[in-house]
Amino acid sequence: MSLLVVGSIAIDSIHTPTEVRENILGGSATHFSYAASFFSSGVQVVGVVGDDWQEEHTKLLTDRGIDTSGIEIQEGGKTFRWTGKYHSNMNDRDTLEVHLNVLENFSPDLSDEAKRCPFVFLANGSPSTQLKVLEQMTGPQLVVADTMDLWIEIERDELKKLMQRIDGLVLNDSEAKLLTEEENLVRAGQKVLEFGPKFVVLKKGEHGAMFFSKGESYVMPAFPTPDVVDPTGAGDSFAGGMMGYLAQQNNFEPKTLKEAMAYGTVVASYIVEDFSLDRMKGITREEIDQRLGQYRQMLSF
Amino acid sequence: MSLLVVGSIAIDSIHTPTEVRENILGGSATHFSYAASFFSSGVQVVGVVGDDWQEEHTKLLTDRGIDTSGIEIQEGGKTFRWTGKYHSNMNDRDTLEVHLNVLENFSPDLSDEAKRCPFVFLANGSPSTQLKVLEQMTGPQLVVADTMDLWIEIERDELKKLMQRIDGLVLNDSEAKLLTEEENLVRAGQKVLEFGPKFVVLKKGEHGAMFFSKGESYVMPAFPTPDVVDPTGAGDSFAGGMMGYLAQQNNFEPKTLKEAMAYGTVVASYIVEDFSLDRMKGITREEIDQRLGQYRQMLSF
Repeated sequence: MSLLVVGSIAIDSIHTPTEVRENILGGSATHFSYAASFFSSGVQVVGVVGDDWQEEHTKLLTDRGIDTSGIEIQEGGKTFRWTGKYHSNMNDRDTLEVHLNVLENFSPDLSDEAKRCPFVFLANGSPSTQLKVLEQMTGPQLVVADTMDLWIEIERDELKKLMQRIDGLVLNDSEAKLLTEEENLVRAGQKVLEFGPKFVVLKKGEHGAMFFSKGESYVMPAFPTPDVVDPTGAGDSFAGGMMGYLAQQNNFEPKTLKEAMAYGTVVASYIVEDFSLDRMKGITREEIDQRLGQYRQMLSF
Repeated sequence: MSLLVVGSIAIDSIHTPTEVRENILGGSATHFSYAASFFSSGVQVVGVVGDDWQEEHTKLLTDRGIDTSGIEIQEGGKTFRWTGKYHSNMNDRDTLEVHLNVLENFSPDLSDEAKRCPFVFLANGSPSTQLKVLEQMTGPQLVVADTMDLWIEIERDELKKLMQRIDGLVLNDSEAKLLTEEENLVRAGQKVLEFGPKFVVLKKGEHGAMFFSKGESYVMPAFPTPDVVDPTGAGDSFAGGMMGYLAQQNNFEPKTLKEAMAYGTVVASYIVEDFSLDRMKGITREEIDQRLGQYRQMLSF
């Protein structure tokens, strides 16, 4: 089934303890859609860029069968830019610079085709923008949203509204603590459910992810890789792998959701092995399935 | 098979964000042996206490079939005391007070029976003391040691000697980073192997544990519990569950080691649910096996 993602498209500059890479492709919708394309053949991306946007970036996505007709190019505008610096643990990071540029007044206007997508991912963006997208949808089957600390702090009311209208929420551990004022992650995850979503995915970076629903909760560790080059996009790639698999399977039964969590974990373990989409460009669905097999084996005893 | 543990026996005072408990039973050898007793019927504990030691503490151990004849009571001395305060995340902690007391000049003198134990755990103690114990052993089958940041900093040479003579090393993530100067935990674990041990268990607190040997490496997440009351002793209980299971199975093949890691994880998930040994006192091996089943189910997809 087709899968819509609405989110940021960015030009990133990344500082790691050993290297600096400037002006590389990034953004939540970019990472999500690329990862999802290994599973779903009907990925549609909606976002905005400036006239500094390079056609080769679009080609990278269309080459994977992603429908990029929803990427709006604003003449006279500049693409969203983010500069981040990772700490030596490669898990914590500081934002050095943010230029919202065309993202500042981004108000997604969906095509009829996009409106009819049964699977929807509202990547990181303000809850009010996420709600605007949701209002345009004509009966989606599954809506999952991502959020972040900024929105929990400055748009908590809109976020609460959003949480009552979505099926799943994806957020990281510190954000879950901030939202619920609970330090224990199991309690925090369970408390997020009370805000409305039917399930919650709590991302723990290098420590993996937790899943919470009324019926069950579980933890999945990250797939251990010694080659962490750049963690940017890991969370969005995780979500892309997860949602891509759900769209491919065309259901979100507990069993499928768990498999989707595992696929998300495996995809995230690839993205961190190089900058931008560089590692993802070199892999195949077969390699993903092979690593999934290793992951399954690792967790069997 | 019989299982020897040499380590600290302590009277702890614990400050958590919501409660203070003073003068409760603690110590690495205590937590280890109690956890191990659910698996192995031949647990022997060697340690030292002062004449402030209460007979009821010994009884708690002997009631579980633990051989406490190796606990030396020093007349005129006081038992080792530790006071710690947990941060709100219940994972980080500060040591408020340490009184080594009788532990300061503790030089374990093993009985003939202890010397012949095939399974040995050298709980946290100085590497030179751990080496002294090792020298008294008559052909153990499996020796595993624990270490901590203090010894990495002040007795690195003795620790290096120790690592060449043991089968397994258990340490936590920050200690592995300190020892190897590697920030990536997979690399850190693999680098510890180069110091000599045949396998390394890297504990990550609430995030579980990693296992490294020449042949394989894997991660096991912690069993998620919403009821974290006091994490003291979780690491030693993990090791006790792990070693107890190995002693019971009388082998340390890769398959058995992985099951042992899972049992250690499950035992650690109980100990944190109350202070001291209070939660452990109320459980049975059947309950441990039941939670192990839940854990296995959680990791299956």
